[in-house]
Amino acid sequence: MIHSLSLSDLLADHARSRPQVTAVVDGDVRRTYPELDARVTRLADALAGRGVAAGERVVWLGQNSHAVLELLLACSRLGAILCPANWRQSEDELRFVLSDLTPKVVVWEPSDATTAVSESTWVRAGDEYERLVASGSPRDFPQVDDGEPVLALYTAAFDGRPNAALLSSAALVAHSASLLVVRQMEPGFTFLNNGPLFHVGTMMFCLATFQIGGTNVFTPAFDAEEVCRLIDAERVTQAFLFGPMIDAVTAANAGGKYDLSSLRFVSHSAEWDSMITVDGSPWCRSKMGGYGQTEVGGMLTFLGLADGGSGFAGRPSPLVQVRILAPDGTELPPGEVGEICARGKTLFSGYFARPDLNAAKSAYGWHHTGDLGRREPDGTITFIGPKLRMIKSGAENIYPAEVERVLKSHPAVADAAVIGVPDPTWHQAVKAVVALKPDTTATADELVDHVRTQLASYKKPSHVAFVDAIPKRGFTPDYDALDAAHGGGNYPGT
Amino acid sequence: MIHSLSLSDLLADHARSRPQVTAVVDGDVRRTYPELDARVTRLADALAGRGVAAGERVVWLGQNSHAVLELLLACSRLGAILCPANWRQSEDELRFVLSDLTPKVVVWEPSDATTAVSESTWVRAGDEYERLVASGSPRDFPQVDDGEPVLALYTAAFDGRPNAALLSSAALVAHSASLLVVRQMEPGFTFLNNGPLFHVGTMMFCLATFQIGGTNVFTPAFDAEEVCRLIDAERVTQAFLFGPMIDAVTAANAGGKYDLSSLRFVSHSAEWDSMITVDGSPWCRSKMGGYGQTEVGGMLTFLGLADGGSGFAGRPSPLVQVRILAPDGTELPPGEVGEICARGKTLFSGYFARPDLNAAKSAYGWHHTGDLGRREPDGTITFIGPKLRMIKSGAENIYPAEVERVLKSHPAVADAAVIGVPDPTWHQAVKAVVALKPDTTATADELVDHVRTQLASYKKPSHVAFVDAIPKRGFTPDYDALDAAHGGGNYPGT
Repeated sequence: MIHSLSLSDLLADHARSRPQVTAVVDGDVRRTYPELDARVTRLADALAGRGVAAGERVVWLGQNSHAVLELLLACSRLGAILCPANWRQSEDELRFVLSDLTPKVVVWEPSDATTAVSESTWVRAGDEYERLVASGSPRDFPQVDDGEPVLALYTAAFDGRPNAALLSSAALVAHSASLLVVRQMEPGFTFLNNGPLFHVGTMMFCLATFQIGGTNVFTPAFDAEEVCRLIDAERVTQAFLFGPMIDAVTAANAGGKYDLSSLRFVSHSAEWDSMITVDGSPWCRSKMGGYGQTEVGGMLTFLGLADGGSGFAGRPSPLVQVRILAPDGTELPPGEVGEICARGKTLFSGYFARPDLNAAKSAYGWHHTGDLGRREPDGTITFIGPKLRMIKSGAENIYPAEVERVLKSHPAVADAAVIGVPDPTWHQAVKAVVALKPDTTATADELVDHVRTQLASYKKPSHVAFVDAIPKRGFTPDYDALDAAHGGGNYPGT
Repeated sequence: MIHSLSLSDLLADHARSRPQVTAVVDGDVRRTYPELDARVTRLADALAGRGVAAGERVVWLGQNSHAVLELLLACSRLGAILCPANWRQSEDELRFVLSDLTPKVVVWEPSDATTAVSESTWVRAGDEYERLVASGSPRDFPQVDDGEPVLALYTAAFDGRPNAALLSSAALVAHSASLLVVRQMEPGFTFLNNGPLFHVGTMMFCLATFQIGGTNVFTPAFDAEEVCRLIDAERVTQAFLFGPMIDAVTAANAGGKYDLSSLRFVSHSAEWDSMITVDGSPWCRSKMGGYGQTEVGGMLTFLGLADGGSGFAGRPSPLVQVRILAPDGTELPPGEVGEICARGKTLFSGYFARPDLNAAKSAYGWHHTGDLGRREPDGTITFIGPKLRMIKSGAENIYPAEVERVLKSHPAVADAAVIGVPDPTWHQAVKAVVALKPDTTATADELVDHVRTQLASYKKPSHVAFVDAIPKRGFTPDYDALDAAHGGGNYPGT
């Protein structure tokens, strides 16, 4: 396996090639690559002792931590799979994830949500996790094929339940290379992991920073003042920031208490621009234009490669192919809308334990993204929107089908559909359109509470409208009619 | 094969994503990516009609031409292998190549050297080649696994005959990605192919330019005036230039007849610097420091990744691992000299039809480069020299190149070579053969002391012989002649 290059292999090389470089910073934790490599070896040995063999799953259930990267690398060393799970999930959602993945080990942070049980070994983050690491012994591990899955990220709740997209070392290494090319990331790159690591958007930068031998700084979650302090103290090059977060950081640094000049970021406001180093190049490291999804490892196309073209998703990464296909698998000419399909080095290995769905998603030998797009005459790609609609509220993706499933489980609900309505703060808010069963009653508050007990809070409807019947197109709600009647709009891609 | 990405696949994507971009320029020839794609399809069909099936070989025998890239892409479309052969070879050398590869088709330029015959179909470059392309029909080809070899480059004449290193699409695509990262190559990149395409040094830039969707400009061979004209006319970003060629280009452009400002290149002389755009960044696109060989796809380590480290080969590309191994396969600690070994995405697939050599080169699961190196305490790599022969003294391995490097650093030494002579106690002893600079003196004891201060004591010469000049075979000492003249022998393995 001379051609194989797993995340574990990369770590082994960094430990040799970059002995003095700081790999991770997290509160009081500060470790070089050799220190990280030594801990990953111990952790892998300890996990193996808890039954984590090749192909087995480990779950991280908590906020951001250096332990996420450490567990991912230990899983890579074993040929196992890490799932950093969404800690904002409801207990019901979490139960589903655990029953779906049947992990051998769960490392968790105490919180109200984490009372779920399973057959797994449960290890508390912090002292108990440190004892687990210390219990492992240094030893050699056999080489792992880099085509084996190493990371599982839940996404794509097409039919009301999410699916775990499996990404191999080969795909992650290739995706990192594409980010390194397009963002022109360099040795010395320091990334602040302030977005959630259970999303590919933050994870992909964490891994690209790791690949170039840079420094990953972890903070549990977004806190404007702490972000300022860390950018200053660690000379952070890039963080996961957008609109409202940038405003919050700017406000937290009013008066220039912190030196944010190491941050090379997109222009935003005069005040922000005066604090940071504005990157106005076409390669702007923080300009996140393009099109992507978890299933392609992160980004499939980059605006930075548009080079004057009109499609606002830009052009494909240098490690993939993109085609716009009709439902029968034939290629559509420029100007026609079809499904964005892809092949290439960064693509996922299918969803965990979903053979039928995987077959459907790879029809005709192309990965079907489930998203609609169009190739412009200049060759660039325009993203149109999900084939099924998705609602975007803050940075979160909300799939109507998922909320509808919960609503329809309420005893008084006959049918329900969920749309997104424009929201001045969050881009969109969730609106439920509900038809009650004859001779039953339920208030809007009751239905919202019902959703809140079963899904993450951000998925609960902000608005509820009652109707006699949901308009249909075939078996599915007629979302266009619902939008027209109930004020829907602002969908991503429109 | 959703993860496969061959050179042919990349061309198919460029034809869609970059319909207006000029792919190749060569004299009067100027073609966009869709035009190149259409010709490659016809050429592949025509080659298939001449027996070029998957795994078969095609030879290009001529100076640089757009046809080299076209033939390579057509071979990729078929799963076949292109060898751009060295047109400067003797007829005897060429006969060896043809009998070794048994190509189905040879495309050749008329010259005195090309009178060799074989069972192949011979097609003359130019009109006959154009008729071949025109004879093919547009059709679909089945997807080719990107792990299959597509390029053969002769190198590594270990035993007096060269071997054809086979590179797969996967390796070439990964190597191009590493060049795109380290050289920060961008869309719009225009490369002047003025070095020979039968060497990996030019071919790797041709392919990286292709991968980012840039423009490859071909010129048959280096001609200073023509290089100036092409840089000006095509707004060339980079060319394959070094010391004496840069002086020749500077002289050809005395008076500033041509505008060379598009060229972003390393600083060389005041006059050169005034003509071009000097790239002083650590990413300098034209700073070729590092270590490489054909068998790793081009570059294995890059000086641009040294980031202050002392080893002048820099650090490994982000897509490989490097280890310094002892002859028994164990890893050597920093500071000790051993063989530079590698694993990773850019590595070759072995030599064509050399099963025994391939097994030896991949001993212990690592590619053995045949070159000596040392890892510095800061993690960077120093390239010492070719392994060639090893001297065994007591239990110690001594590599001539390492001792020669130190001897040549003595101010009185013009040239030096080191051999092993039989020794009754130690099996072999180190003997230095030294040529002094005119009008200098140095005693044997002085030279031995000089080595002792810089290397482990067992590596110091026990014997010193002074000669007027070191006999050479190409650029390296002729060790057989030195052994015969100075009593060498008893080498391990003989």
